[in-house]
Amino acid sequence: MNKEELLQLMHPMKLIGLSGNPALNEKIATILKKPLIETAVQHFSDGEIQVNIGESVRGCDVFVIQSIQDPVNENFMELEIVLDALHRASAHRINVVVPYLAYSRSDTKTRSREPITAKLVANLLQITGLDHLIALDLHASQIQGFYNVPVDHLHAMPLLAQYFLDNGIATKEEDDIVVVSPDHSGAKLARNFGQFFDAPIAIVDQRRERYDTDVHDMIGDVKDKKCIIVDDLIDTGSRISSSTKSVLAAGAKKVYVAATHALLSQNALETLNELPIEQIVVTDTIKHSHYPDRMVRISVDLLLARGINYVYNDRSMHLLSESDLK
Amino acid sequence: MNKEELLQLMHPMKLIGLSGNPALNEKIATILKKPLIETAVQHFSDGEIQVNIGESVRGCDVFVIQSIQDPVNENFMELEIVLDALHRASAHRINVVVPYLAYSRSDTKTRSREPITAKLVANLLQITGLDHLIALDLHASQIQGFYNVPVDHLHAMPLLAQYFLDNGIATKEEDDIVVVSPDHSGAKLARNFGQFFDAPIAIVDQRRERYDTDVHDMIGDVKDKKCIIVDDLIDTGSRISSSTKSVLAAGAKKVYVAATHALLSQNALETLNELPIEQIVVTDTIKHSHYPDRMVRISVDLLLARGINYVYNDRSMHLLSESDLK
Amino acid sequence: MNKEELLQLMHPMKLIGLSGNPALNEKIATILKKPLIETAVQHFSDGEIQVNIGESVRGCDVFVIQSIQDPVNENFMELEIVLDALHRASAHRINVVVPYLAYSRSDTKTRSREPITAKLVANLLQITGLDHLIALDLHASQIQGFYNVPVDHLHAMPLLAQYFLDNGIATKEEDDIVVVSPDHSGAKLARNFGQFFDAPIAIVDQRRERYDTDVHDMIGDVKDKKCIIVDDLIDTGSRISSSTKSVLAAGAKKVYVAATHALLSQNALETLNELPIEQIVVTDTIKHSHYPDRMVRISVDLLLARGINYVYNDRSMHLLSESDLK
Amino acid sequence: MNKEELLQLMHPMKLIGLSGNPALNEKIATILKKPLIETAVQHFSDGEIQVNIGESVRGCDVFVIQSIQDPVNENFMELEIVLDALHRASAHRINVVVPYLAYSRSDTKTRSREPITAKLVANLLQITGLDHLIALDLHASQIQGFYNVPVDHLHAMPLLAQYFLDNGIATKEEDDIVVVSPDHSGAKLARNFGQFFDAPIAIVDQRRERYDTDVHDMIGDVKDKKCIIVDDLIDTGSRISSSTKSVLAAGAKKVYVAATHALLSQNALETLNELPIEQIVVTDTIKHSHYPDRMVRISVDLLLARGINYVYNDRSMHLLSESDLK
Amino acid sequence: MNKEELLQLMHPMKLIGLSGNPALNEKIATILKKPLIETAVQHFSDGEIQVNIGESVRGCDVFVIQSIQDPVNENFMELEIVLDALHRASAHRINVVVPYLAYSRSDTKTRSREPITAKLVANLLQITGLDHLIALDLHASQIQGFYNVPVDHLHAMPLLAQYFLDNGIATKEEDDIVVVSPDHSGAKLARNFGQFFDAPIAIVDQRRERYDTDVHDMIGDVKDKKCIIVDDLIDTGSRISSSTKSVLAAGAKKVYVAATHALLSQNALETLNELPIEQIVVTDTIKHSHYPDRMVRISVDLLLARGINYVYNDRSMHLLSESDLK
Amino acid sequence: MNKEELLQLMHPMKLIGLSGNPALNEKIATILKKPLIETAVQHFSDGEIQVNIGESVRGCDVFVIQSIQDPVNENFMELEIVLDALHRASAHRINVVVPYLAYSRSDTKTRSREPITAKLVANLLQITGLDHLIALDLHASQIQGFYNVPVDHLHAMPLLAQYFLDNGIATKEEDDIVVVSPDHSGAKLARNFGQFFDAPIAIVDQRRERYDTDVHDMIGDVKDKKCIIVDDLIDTGSRISSSTKSVLAAGAKKVYVAATHALLSQNALETLNELPIEQIVVTDTIKHSHYPDRMVRISVDLLLARGINYVYNDRSMHLLSESDLK
Repeated sequence: MNKEELLQLMHPMKLIGLSGNPALNEKIATILKKPLIETAVQHFSDGEIQVNIGESVRGCDVFVIQSIQDPVNENFMELEIVLDALHRASAHRINVVVPYLAYSRSDTKTRSREPITAKLVANLLQITGLDHLIALDLHASQIQGFYNVPVDHLHAMPLLAQYFLDNGIATKEEDDIVVVSPDHSGAKLARNFGQFFDAPIAIVDQRRERYDTDVHDMIGDVKDKKCIIVDDLIDTGSRISSSTKSVLAAGAKKVYVAATHALLSQNALETLNELPIEQIVVTDTIKHSHYPDRMVRISVDLLLARGINYVYNDRSMHLLSESDLK
Repeated sequence: MNKEELLQLMHPMKLIGLSGNPALNEKIATILKKPLIETAVQHFSDGEIQVNIGESVRGCDVFVIQSIQDPVNENFMELEIVLDALHRASAHRINVVVPYLAYSRSDTKTRSREPITAKLVANLLQITGLDHLIALDLHASQIQGFYNVPVDHLHAMPLLAQYFLDNGIATKEEDDIVVVSPDHSGAKLARNFGQFFDAPIAIVDQRRERYDTDVHDMIGDVKDKKCIIVDDLIDTGSRISSSTKSVLAAGAKKVYVAATHALLSQNALETLNELPIEQIVVTDTIKHSHYPDRMVRISVDLLLARGINYVYNDRSMHLLSESDLK
Repeated sequence: MNKEELLQLMHPMKLIGLSGNPALNEKIATILKKPLIETAVQHFSDGEIQVNIGESVRGCDVFVIQSIQDPVNENFMELEIVLDALHRASAHRINVVVPYLAYSRSDTKTRSREPITAKLVANLLQITGLDHLIALDLHASQIQGFYNVPVDHLHAMPLLAQYFLDNGIATKEEDDIVVVSPDHSGAKLARNFGQFFDAPIAIVDQRRERYDTDVHDMIGDVKDKKCIIVDDLIDTGSRISSSTKSVLAAGAKKVYVAATHALLSQNALETLNELPIEQIVVTDTIKHSHYPDRMVRISVDLLLARGINYVYNDRSMHLLSESDLK
Repeated sequence: MNKEELLQLMHPMKLIGLSGNPALNEKIATILKKPLIETAVQHFSDGEIQVNIGESVRGCDVFVIQSIQDPVNENFMELEIVLDALHRASAHRINVVVPYLAYSRSDTKTRSREPITAKLVANLLQITGLDHLIALDLHASQIQGFYNVPVDHLHAMPLLAQYFLDNGIATKEEDDIVVVSPDHSGAKLARNFGQFFDAPIAIVDQRRERYDTDVHDMIGDVKDKKCIIVDDLIDTGSRISSSTKSVLAAGAKKVYVAATHALLSQNALETLNELPIEQIVVTDTIKHSHYPDRMVRISVDLLLARGINYVYNDRSMHLLSESDLK
Repeated sequence: MNKEELLQLMHPMKLIGLSGNPALNEKIATILKKPLIETAVQHFSDGEIQVNIGESVRGCDVFVIQSIQDPVNENFMELEIVLDALHRASAHRINVVVPYLAYSRSDTKTRSREPITAKLVANLLQITGLDHLIALDLHASQIQGFYNVPVDHLHAMPLLAQYFLDNGIATKEEDDIVVVSPDHSGAKLARNFGQFFDAPIAIVDQRRERYDTDVHDMIGDVKDKKCIIVDDLIDTGSRISSSTKSVLAAGAKKVYVAATHALLSQNALETLNELPIEQIVVTDTIKHSHYPDRMVRISVDLLLARGINYVYNDRSMHLLSESDLK
Repeated sequence: MNKEELLQLMHPMKLIGLSGNPALNEKIATILKKPLIETAVQHFSDGEIQVNIGESVRGCDVFVIQSIQDPVNENFMELEIVLDALHRASAHRINVVVPYLAYSRSDTKTRSREPITAKLVANLLQITGLDHLIALDLHASQIQGFYNVPVDHLHAMPLLAQYFLDNGIATKEEDDIVVVSPDHSGAKLARNFGQFFDAPIAIVDQRRERYDTDVHDMIGDVKDKKCIIVDDLIDTGSRISSSTKSVLAAGAKKVYVAATHALLSQNALETLNELPIEQIVVTDTIKHSHYPDRMVRISVDLLLARGINYVYNDRSMHLLSESDLK
């Protein structure tokens, strides 16, 4: 008997997909060749959620996939309640896979009497018997430290970069790409993303005292360049909007956008559709009924499926990030 | 200096009212002659909640009033986030007042792989620095035991009974009142409620194998009686409906309803309006835009204000339940 | 190798039987075909208890069987001390099987300044490394929620009902059985028990203001019926006594009693012997040196042995409650 | 207003005396000029304990005095249940005063699979909201470290030594006193006790391989000396017996015994009465109905009352041990 | 009596200064007009630390000031041991003031199998009874979220900026200042620092693949400008060195450096002395025996003293950051 | 497949050796036939420690060997940081092996406002995911009780005794050996050590009031005897020095010393070299660059390797202490 057979006998893997992003759940399950176990999640007319796990999980290693996207509080509580049910049902280990983890931007106290909601979320998840978290491109990598349980922090950025290379938008040699950070905090992400193309970076100099305008100064040179604006997420699209206008005002010749999480809240669709952007390359961590024009969605299904598989089989995630994603 | 003055100096009382039931918050604050402190709670377009407490709470005894009613998950998370903010803002003691505490019916595991959400809620609240809970007519009194922090469990039933006495519907002497429990679990509540009128009780014999009918057998005699159906809450109204039909089929002459929490979910309004009920007497723990006809709402404002006052001043709640509510 | 063999190699099952009810321990061990491991438990002359586990438990799945019956504090502390010893001796998982769990009636705060001892017991057990609890007919099912570790709550009521069916006292068709609850809180248990015979129920209307009498009004009709008074436990027998008198006064023709736990404290023997009860059907969760006349004791040995076996082998307890008990 | 008045207003001191040693409780209360608040503690016929605190303790600094003596498990559980009740009743701080703390001898694991019950006791006490512990002559001073809450460890040995000085049995100058430890572990205690008289010490060389005899070799010289055998407690008296015989066999001229805690379990009375001991000087931490002849009981009432007073008023316990006990 | 007098009576403020930076401790104590209480901290020849607090702290609000600078592990353990002593000595509240908190840069897991030491430090501090933390310019503001206790995060950057304004190096109007971030992560800090002078920013484009050179590309324009390189700390000085060379290579006319924490490890002195920097403006959070030439040290004594005072008196820290520092 | 093969498949054993005593780590690894996994531990110029574990430990049973010797705070923090890294890297179980555990002498509070550092160390270790501790000859066996995780407390004293027997210094029959305790607290250890030779014991009567002299009275007879002074550790050597002088002054003919841990701090080398001691027999738990003359170092490598092996394979440590060490 090898290790995988032993594990399947001792602690069978079970997958649960919750309401956040069912299509992604299905794609992950298909790759893993495991069914999602039937889980009755009812949202009642009085607003309460009731949950019943459809089959025994005693002694199992359970992986619960939930994208904590809008409606975030519903999806978060749904996850909490499922974790409570799994724990009381004697699951062996409870692993949570969050393609998108809401509240990650609330990771510090910027003014007096603010909460640190990302830490609150960590505390609440950990009280319900969570053993392991698999997350994707968290807003700040320090959020790993909000958890005492092990966190595997996966990155979709290489997938996004690969799209630009595969489609000839950028190459490793040419010189006319500039990676642009929409604000100062994103400079490091832009630099990391730039490494894929050996490209210089520029920063949109968003300044508090100049919030009445949509066009900001640029730090770094974008004139006559193809600009790839890179961010971890697109929310209402207003930051992409002002960044696009700023780089164009500074003489950029083409604008692309790359981001992991496409929240697309409020009237993001209209905002983005009106911008002269060539392509908006995102992943499928967030489901919507409609998407903006020129949006390309790269699936993270294989990345997350491999992540689950590696955690289940005690394989080093280090290997995953190096090679195992074709 | 007396104790109250000392407390106001050392640990001023601060009141925060959250989104669940603002009208009730205001009424409580008015009685306490304390303003609700400004608390900016924003529900963003991406589904996240952001909170900022409007004034310093360092060293204060804070009372947060939140009815965890529909939308329950939004209201619950709003409360959690405010608690996190208060704790990080160095509040001295954090007291939570919940006129209605959702999920209390999920207080046990009735089938395999169900959660015990009422316990989950208790665990989540306690992790955020909660020092004290004031609750009102919990679905099961055992829920107090889900908490390790002190719980003051107040009762609105005496207020409801008083209404029947004050309005001449029932007296302590007459003989034609029967208090009716809509199911077996409620027999004890019915008995307690019956004590106010020295009345006998009856029980609607709801049986699983006979769920195809709306009219059930009665245990106990209701013929030619005024029946007061009593329950802790009214959800969709279907249980009130079948109980009303059952007591009428068994010969009751008039039907009244008494309940603490009027959830009125789904099409409860239509259901209740169509029933031949004289009056439905409830409290104002839950806010709605519309109410059924013949519904009388008794306010719990004084009860909760007194509760807050007693907790703040270290007065025995025992005294409150005995006398202090006129 | 199959799963059971693997488990036996990796985490051998070990059984420990404590002082509460040694005869039941033995019967369970016999069914499981496992010896009880020798555990020296000494109660010293100064009142202290000393414990030494007779063989290594490193890496083992240990099941400790202890009926927390009179003397409950001795038996409870004995269990706590054994758990401490097992934890320090590097047991892999510690499961506790409590045929009877004392203090379960103290499950809520009925007056000011009362403890909730059932929750205290839960907290104390969980601090000593408890991984899993198997309990039987707890006084209130909410007590499961007092625990954060998984609880398997088994039910002996079907065994008791089966006795009445097997011995021709009740049938599923005949019409002269009424199941009687000795008080209002027990109505739901009576209804559940009634389902086995498709029988109606009645309730002894014990009212505080009428405690000077032993004969109470009945809610529901018992005239000329065979009454089965059902309760979760028999303590001093006084409640059985007044219930018996009440149903007889209301015209019942025969009285039976069914209860899971026979505490039989104070002068319960005399009380029960003097009552005109046909049979008192209980289980063997509590050991005594003498039993009342006409008491039939049904063993829960198979039920608990199966429970242990299912927990050890990660089998769904759901299956147990459905079929596996002949 | 001075500090004590402020404290009395903000956090009144309340005393609770439990069943272990009521006479001592009364004496402490008398010194503190505070009544013991009425606490109904009932030990029921089924073995359970029920507790009701007789007056409000909200916001109070409560001191619970309980000697955890035989029956130790009853007394310990009584204390735990009272602590649970106090915590749920919103006491401000809960201080426990244990004149005698059972299980302190189980402070290490001497063989495989033994518990460390003194640590278990510490864990169990701390889970119930204990804020502070006042203990007296613990078997090992390391037991302080079993607690994370502050422990004030008081010493009665100076009181015992003072008795010998006050009654002319020993002086600081004379040369014929030897302080004797009944075994090797007690050598340090003997040395400390010897300092009061500037006396040499000797040790009874109890050796495992020679347990068939009652007379052991002496380490150190006792010939023609007055021997004071000193121990932290007297249990069955057998160790005192063999020590007495050993020192007499080695030529001692007179034997005295000094010990803090007189457990006097099993047939300690007979054993001690038969020994040619001049006087047995103990404290009143343990109550009995009968005492051996020639036993002198020094009260620790003033010591404990002062301890309570110092803790309540935030006075340094250091000052107490230096001077404040006449 | 006003609040401050009440506090001094109920919970006197006590200051403890540890070994990290005694001069700063003294300056803070002088401003607060409170003596540092004598605390014997001995570092023994076997490497262990022993601590004895010189006066009673029962019921006191203690503020422990410790700069966790080199030797960081010695200083950290010294702090931990003092916290343990204070907790066991019944301090009322324990506040820790850390002018410099080592290990803050280890705030995330950048590679497999790395620790998150800043979180470990937070966990270790919180286990020892810490009630409140006052920190200064943490490496990442997310570190606040590593703590569950309230953290007051103070900022020395305004003090540094004020120096440049006060000494005419920069003005709010002139146009020849550029604030430079030595790497991409620091862009936000540079932007914030730039606000004081309404200045543009530039970034040294440190790229992993080009680590063989000391001169990096600049993002943003520095030609003919006065550059202020700003960082949270100066460690070995190598980052300052390459940044200086880079801005000069890009045509900067003058170079200044501003940083809160001057670690100056390894041969930082030589490195910095050799660089053509006009002035290096830092604070006195770290003590050294020698400092580089042209280093100006601004004291944070008043800032920290005010912080302590505000925490002690429950004043909003918000007010401090706004106005109270002249 | 047998259990060991299964374990190696499911949870491979991994060994990590830290900086305290690398030579001992290597010897243990050699006996276990397992490599020490490469662990990069860097002590940086600013005083911080950085750690990177060289290979995957997911799902592994890791044993970390660290002698917490001088520099104890560095070595302790190194261990803590490695534990944090292992925990976050998803190790299955983390076992710590401490040949020497510093701070064990700080096991009680001897004066007001002292810490109990041995308990602090226990608390700090347990927060970082420690599952099991293997320790050797702790200063007080009560320290086991400071831990809630299982502790295996191994003893090197039999190895030391065996040396005296093997080398003909002592026999089980001859009569001229006396085992000497250097102070009163050590009497029990001396007695236990004496059992190996059936020897009497004596005690150096170190008295506080006579600290001006180096020569103390003896309790027990050493005249014309070979004395083996036995202690758990040798720190500065001053206690050995005064003990040696005392026994010689009392007529001893030869002096030997036996101790588990040779700290040898301050000028212990000179002190010990100048004493007329025949041999100083210690273990190799502490590494030094130089050792005193006439010091014999017995390795504990086999003892600790066996301990690791037994823990890994769930074998009873009881068997180890009995037989498995040739």
